[in-house]
Amino acid sequence: MRVLILGGDGYLGWPTAMSLAVKGHDVWVIDSYLRRRIAMDTRSEALIPTPNLHDRSEFFKSVCGKKIGVTIGDCADYRLLSRLFSDFQPEAVIHYAEQPSAPYSMIGYDEARTTLNNNLNTTFSLIWAVNEFGKNCHIIKLGTMGEYGTPNIDIEEGWIEIAHGGRKDKFLFPRQGGSLYHTTKVLDTDLLWFYVRAYGLTVTDLMQGPVYGLSTAESDYDRRLLPNFHYDDIFGTVMNRFLVQAVAGIPLTVYGRGDQIRGYLNLKDTLQCVELAMNTPPAPGELRILNQFTEQFSVNTLAEKVQAAGNGLGLNVTVNHIDNPRKEMEQHYYNAKHHGLMELGLVPHYLTEEVLADMLKTVAAYKGAIDNAKILPRVRWNSR
Amino acid sequence: MRVLILGGDGYLGWPTAMSLAVKGHDVWVIDSYLRRRIAMDTRSEALIPTPNLHDRSEFFKSVCGKKIGVTIGDCADYRLLSRLFSDFQPEAVIHYAEQPSAPYSMIGYDEARTTLNNNLNTTFSLIWAVNEFGKNCHIIKLGTMGEYGTPNIDIEEGWIEIAHGGRKDKFLFPRQGGSLYHTTKVLDTDLLWFYVRAYGLTVTDLMQGPVYGLSTAESDYDRRLLPNFHYDDIFGTVMNRFLVQAVAGIPLTVYGRGDQIRGYLNLKDTLQCVELAMNTPPAPGELRILNQFTEQFSVNTLAEKVQAAGNGLGLNVTVNHIDNPRKEMEQHYYNAKHHGLMELGLVPHYLTEEVLADMLKTVAAYKGAIDNAKILPRVRWNSR
Repeated sequence: MRVLILGGDGYLGWPTAMSLAVKGHDVWVIDSYLRRRIAMDTRSEALIPTPNLHDRSEFFKSVCGKKIGVTIGDCADYRLLSRLFSDFQPEAVIHYAEQPSAPYSMIGYDEARTTLNNNLNTTFSLIWAVNEFGKNCHIIKLGTMGEYGTPNIDIEEGWIEIAHGGRKDKFLFPRQGGSLYHTTKVLDTDLLWFYVRAYGLTVTDLMQGPVYGLSTAESDYDRRLLPNFHYDDIFGTVMNRFLVQAVAGIPLTVYGRGDQIRGYLNLKDTLQCVELAMNTPPAPGELRILNQFTEQFSVNTLAEKVQAAGNGLGLNVTVNHIDNPRKEMEQHYYNAKHHGLMELGLVPHYLTEEVLADMLKTVAAYKGAIDNAKILPRVRWNSR
Repeated sequence: MRVLILGGDGYLGWPTAMSLAVKGHDVWVIDSYLRRRIAMDTRSEALIPTPNLHDRSEFFKSVCGKKIGVTIGDCADYRLLSRLFSDFQPEAVIHYAEQPSAPYSMIGYDEARTTLNNNLNTTFSLIWAVNEFGKNCHIIKLGTMGEYGTPNIDIEEGWIEIAHGGRKDKFLFPRQGGSLYHTTKVLDTDLLWFYVRAYGLTVTDLMQGPVYGLSTAESDYDRRLLPNFHYDDIFGTVMNRFLVQAVAGIPLTVYGRGDQIRGYLNLKDTLQCVELAMNTPPAPGELRILNQFTEQFSVNTLAEKVQAAGNGLGLNVTVNHIDNPRKEMEQHYYNAKHHGLMELGLVPHYLTEEVLADMLKTVAAYKGAIDNAKILPRVRWNSR
């Protein structure tokens, strides 16, 4: 299949490109390097330096014998994107091309505007490129479980039937993001849903939880093929922060009470999910929404798991609760359904002590590069 | 009160400015003339020529003795808007500055992008100008009843309590717009709701139905103070189209079956509603949503009302059903609540035969200017 990947330089984009290329698909990636620029601007460079996309593609070819086409450019630029559509004629597009940092989106006006316009206009350009150049192309969009927030009812897979006043109807499950970044993903879903209804597009919107892991079949060949690993307060996930803190011998910083529950998944499972979605597209005119995670637990539980794995490796891991820089509920009900991808054939890789130990060992190889100043939160939701 | 009106050149913006100025408020308006430019570009000029905003303001001053400050510029330009906030220090902002045409938003990529970026970035700039320069300023945003679509359950005022799996929570009422224009208003509400939660803004979001009427206390002084009256397929409402068709002696064109039900209101009631909302702001950190219309009926009923009023004036009014250019349900349940503004003191002006006759007489005075070529739909939702 001809697969176009928007945001192919990212933590998920690059491993997806390699994985699909090895499986025999014809893969093209586009990326504007927005994340690299923001990382430089905010002193949030990744722990493990990643070669630029052209170099990675050439190195991948030398190792795996497969070509990945590369365009460096802005997907929000409709002329560029439509030229790519017209030349490459993708049958599926995987859309990762979003400014993905919640803290960055909360710094101030400029950062919020960059997030809003990059994310909305990229999704919008993609919708129109499909409208005009590839009506049957399947859009696979990465959303986030964070679109749902933490409601006091079970989170369904994208849709909910509401009974009200003796009547009923089916609606998008209510969405309420916890940062401007999460809110832009809500807007993306609104936009996609409108154009699915208006023009009969074929769309899968994957509501993904936080992803962890560095190891994939392809990245294991050579460290130059590793995905980027951020542990800073801008792009780093809570998992990566804990791993780095465990290795650096500083306490794991839990934000607030630590009872915040989220659904997590292994990078290997992201690759599976995206491929499963691609291989079994929904009907034209359907917006299929799947919740993409494999297990849910609290931040405290995550800290305990990292602590146990770290101590098993002879590290002396401690845990510290700090003021929560975010505005979020720290005690809440959380029960999110996630049947759809299992039914498509997902075989989960759970967060075992072995998986954690492997990640800790990878991070330990870069211990000398850890900069403690990057770890603590610099952005506060309440600063205004 | 110092009141800033975004979109002060519009059908609602200008009458609101006059009305509040006469009541003793200190009023400033800003408008980018986007609607005038689109009207020129699409051959959709208004039936009654309206002077530019500076001229209207000067003429208004000569008639009513009150000054209305005027800035011509783009509200999506944050530097301009924040300078205005810093200079004028508004205590309330009424935000009408949206590309308001559903058909325009469905023409193609360029028109859709203009609609998306104008509407979202104007709302976004306003949010940030309030954040930075006027934290206590009350934002009164004009939404649309069209945000809700036509669900099979009663439409509540903005919020709904959902019981699900033995638990319950309160959410924004589900939204599903029928055009890209309506969808941008859904996105506006999402954005406002996020920043209300994040920064404690004070916001009233008025979900307004189609407005009709030309007569207000101030516009009745002189026809140079009239609001704009569009009957074209781009900016004209179904009501205005019917009025012009009745006067021009051509059949009223009902789109499809004509069982589409909407909530309507008189321009005089828009002025009341906005003033009532302004005089009784919600608490900081509250997103108050009010459904703004006074009566609901189908397009067929509207056609019958115009026919009866027209025939009462000696016109020979006929009705014709044509292919629906839009994608919308033509038979549906519709029951929208609208208690909030009544409780604030709204005294409705209903659509009586007298009101219709007055409008028909005003239109008849411009009969010679009617261009039949502008009336029939040129934009189809299904064209892709």
